[in-house]
Amino acid sequence: MSSRVALSVVEGSGMTDQSNGNWRPWLATRTSIFQVEEGLSLAPKFDAAGHIPVVTTDADTGEVLMMAVMNAEALVRTIETGEAHYWSRSRQRIWHKGATSGLVQRVIEMRVDDDQDAIWLRVKVAGSGASCHVGYRSCFYRSVPLGILGDAAVTLRFEEHRKVFDPDAVYGDSPNPTQL
Amino acid sequence: MSSRVALSVVEGSGMTDQSNGNWRPWLATRTSIFQVEEGLSLAPKFDAAGHIPVVTTDADTGEVLMMAVMNAEALVRTIETGEAHYWSRSRQRIWHKGATSGLVQRVIEMRVDDDQDAIWLRVKVAGSGASCHVGYRSCFYRSVPLGILGDAAVTLRFEEHRKVFDPDAVYGDSPNPTQL
Repeated sequence: MSSRVALSVVEGSGMTDQSNGNWRPWLATRTSIFQVEEGLSLAPKFDAAGHIPVVTTDADTGEVLMMAVMNAEALVRTIETGEAHYWSRSRQRIWHKGATSGLVQRVIEMRVDDDQDAIWLRVKVAGSGASCHVGYRSCFYRSVPLGILGDAAVTLRFEEHRKVFDPDAVYGDSPNPTQL
Repeated sequence: MSSRVALSVVEGSGMTDQSNGNWRPWLATRTSIFQVEEGLSLAPKFDAAGHIPVVTTDADTGEVLMMAVMNAEALVRTIETGEAHYWSRSRQRIWHKGATSGLVQRVIEMRVDDDQDAIWLRVKVAGSGASCHVGYRSCFYRSVPLGILGDAAVTLRFEEHRKVFDPDAVYGDSPNPTQL
């Protein structure tokens, strides 16, 4: 039952602490390069804003669905629940992916990189399977042609040709997270 | 021949400019959310340090090999040459991946995300196929178990069981990029 106790402590705290110390015992303090690279303790490094970048791929296809960030609370919640939680920079709060859209991401596997400053989630997406607020399956729906630098801006190519859902119907009047 | 002209202009400039304006005509200025999300111009957003995050996957397996950042110059060089270039934060210079190790990453496909603040590279790696400075194939060689929060730090599990190359032999006395 320790996991339930854990969540009840965390719940709604809105903590944006940048050290692992406040998330003991689950997140270890970083003590040496050997510990970080070759050890068995989860000792993630958050940036000055308290964030760690996350890449999320489709567990079946390997397709990259999105990139986002977590804070310590989002990381702990994702481990605890097995559903992807991020930190929303546009809304400045914990973001349980799918809470609005229903497109919950069930985490099949979580990995951490060598210096523990990045997270990789392999997920299965509920519902339509989309992960992109614009309505496409992957956020990476356009490719950049290689080897050609002409006299104008690089011309992108659409790799997805139709939206999986209607973002207006799903998100309504919610502000668009894209910022110029 | 415009591409050769382009590289000769860029070469060795060491520019760390944060606007796209200095990389006209190839990188467009961001003018509207519609242009950024639905348009055909490459109009990337760099953060305050002039960086854009990059995820690099194996073009065959979909495995995430590494996460890094590019600055505008690294992005343009990658498009131009079809080989992955990053910005090395530890060395503070352009990083042609594989220049030291021989493990060059040939880019099969480059994609950009909805709000154009992240890049995805699908690559084939030369030589031993490794991309991790610790000697493993992927930087993400350890997994984080889910659904269990006990009374101690989360215990990682190694998903790769042997190093593909000897980092001491390849990198010699070069400083380890991992920072506490």
